Amino acid sequence: ARVPEAEIKARTRSLRRLMRGDRLQAVFLTTRPAVHYYSGFTGDDSALLLTLKKAILLTDFRYFEEAEGSTHGCEILLWKKSIPATAGKLARDLKVRSIGFEETDLSIKAYKLLRSAARGCKLVEWVGRSRMPRLCKSEFELKAISKALRVAEKAFMETRALLRPGMLEIELARELEYRMQTHGAEGTAFPSVVAVGANASLPHAHPGKRKILEGKPLLIDWGARLDNYNSDLTRTLFLGSIPSPWKERYQCVLEAQLFAISKFTANTTTEKVDLAAYNKLEESGLAKRFGHALGHGVGLEVHEGPVLSRRVKGKLKPGMVVTVEPGVYFPKRGGIRIEDMVLMTAKGARVLSRLPKSLDWASIS
Amino acid sequence: ARVPEAEIKARTRSLRRLMRGDRLQAVFLTTRPAVHYYSGFTGDDSALLLTLKKAILLTDFRYFEEAEGSTHGCEILLWKKSIPATAGKLARDLKVRSIGFEETDLSIKAYKLLRSAARGCKLVEWVGRSRMPRLCKSEFELKAISKALRVAEKAFMETRALLRPGMLEIELARELEYRMQTHGAEGTAFPSVVAVGANASLPHAHPGKRKILEGKPLLIDWGARLDNYNSDLTRTLFLGSIPSPWKERYQCVLEAQLFAISKFTANTTTEKVDLAAYNKLEESGLAKRFGHALGHGVGLEVHEGPVLSRRVKGKLKPGMVVTVEPGVYFPKRGGIRIEDMVLMTAKGARVLSRLPKSLDWASIS
Repeated sequence: ARVPEAEIKARTRSLRRLMRGDRLQAVFLTTRPAVHYYSGFTGDDSALLLTLKKAILLTDFRYFEEAEGSTHGCEILLWKKSIPATAGKLARDLKVRSIGFEETDLSIKAYKLLRSAARGCKLVEWVGRSRMPRLCKSEFELKAISKALRVAEKAFMETRALLRPGMLEIELARELEYRMQTHGAEGTAFPSVVAVGANASLPHAHPGKRKILEGKPLLIDWGARLDNYNSDLTRTLFLGSIPSPWKERYQCVLEAQLFAISKFTANTTTEKVDLAAYNKLEESGLAKRFGHALGHGVGLEVHEGPVLSRRVKGKLKPGMVVTVEPGVYFPKRGGIRIEDMVLMTAKGARVLSRLPKSLDWASIS
Repeated sequence: ARVPEAEIKARTRSLRRLMRGDRLQAVFLTTRPAVHYYSGFTGDDSALLLTLKKAILLTDFRYFEEAEGSTHGCEILLWKKSIPATAGKLARDLKVRSIGFEETDLSIKAYKLLRSAARGCKLVEWVGRSRMPRLCKSEFELKAISKALRVAEKAFMETRALLRPGMLEIELARELEYRMQTHGAEGTAFPSVVAVGANASLPHAHPGKRKILEGKPLLIDWGARLDNYNSDLTRTLFLGSIPSPWKERYQCVLEAQLFAISKFTANTTTEKVDLAAYNKLEESGLAKRFGHALGHGVGLEVHEGPVLSRRVKGKLKPGMVVTVEPGVYFPKRGGIRIEDMVLMTAKGARVLSRLPKSLDWASIS
């Protein structure tokens, strides 16, 4: 679905407000999510030069038709030699005197091309600013994220019903991904993790030819991409009844997750919610098994701001959509993680994902 | 499958030869394919500092077990603060005086972190050098590429047999991708293009809810990823008999492709083979419809060196694996592209892909 014109206008308005505040006359946006967010463009290998008055999409002939059909309020320009060189020349032609860029998004090579073509313009490192409007999601975006969640959930429920002892990790991954597409996903949000037993102790395990067996944790981390938005979920299942100590560990992780979600209150911070999960796990001596952060923002990227980490300060603001995913890992034995997506609102958490997660449900007999 | 130790040794030996030639004491490798190529590591978010004597993989706790199980000859180090900062400090500790990096692969941010941590070291832009050993494929790599091809081909033949008028682009894409996984693919090499009619005039069209109908070109560009290697193929099919002028156009594209492949001779250049296809299309007045380059290298990346373009000089050397994919596009009407993967050998072209491509076969009744 095409991004509505009003949506693009609101987004560029927010960005231009930031630009004015920092006395910037233009920004050079080079990542796919940034270009899409501020223009609607759905293709690849392109960039956006946004001045206080104009937006110019720099693309090539392969995407010209797509650019016309997906953007709003953009001039479309085919670049020559290179995107940064064309952007630099354009900035000079438009008499732009300062161009902001994100230091994480520009390679040394691109920077040099831009600098040389934009002689006389000041290049300004504009750290994280172009991502700020994306932190809090609009109604339009929340709908897109919900769609990406529904698709992932339907596919998961169907795949869960297929689970049998002896099935391979890759078979499960394949069924899950096929079913996401059947329900409307354009693809996966990221390579699915389907990990049984020891493999589940690797937070980013690749599915392989390991058999899914009774009594061992089966960790599934998956998501769908739909209209450029993503979902990201994790469940840990067991074939048959859940043996000790996995049963107790599962319960602890679930409690830590629910406790962290209960801390989504007015004026909370991103570090507080992570710390809530950490402290809860500490009560059972499991905190040292929880090595990663509690969660991250999800939207046009599967991993975007904010990060929910006890090591990083930040506000949790209404409109932010984040994962809440405590996990505990035991090398060579396995791991448990439970991940949902949560919207921060003025009234606290609204859990956007709808899958069950009780201990009973996690055991498949 | 784990990359054999002898393979990693040969690769790092090639790179170190280049380093010595350029008087470099270390290189900082930051992309997933580069890290995998020189270490065997299969995870993400990691980097490799390769000195003349040592290889140190910089990763985080999520990938520690995976690093131990997939690399050869590497020390594994968990980074602190950031990867470039840890690499810079390490270089100082090792008394390295010069570090090479690829200017396309390092962001301004990463460069600054590295520079500040590696005070006293000279940072050297080492343009394209770290990719040079990857240009010509080893027997091991050719086997991996062949596997990725066989999987893509099997899935395509099965999916082709399912084609019926009224089927949607996305349905076809989903079946194709599911079948690639069934035959052993870890995933797709890139988002599949399944484009019918007008949509096929966009070289990188997304599959949508358009119906596949008789008499309109159906362009399918797909590939499989397996053991980190990729395949990349395109076929254009028609339901029912092929109407004019598509029939003639198909024949021209096919002739241009075969003609270009016949030019894979000793001492040929990358620009000559592209020009061969271009000139052949020119004979039928179609050259202006052929806007892109003839092809590109395929390996750990779907798009890697060399590029086969009339605008870029280069040798076509034994061991290079490239796509040969002439295409003609008619805005709002459609397009035709035929793509195979070809190995350059001392005796000329060896076409690695095995799918038919005759006019008869392209028409499905």
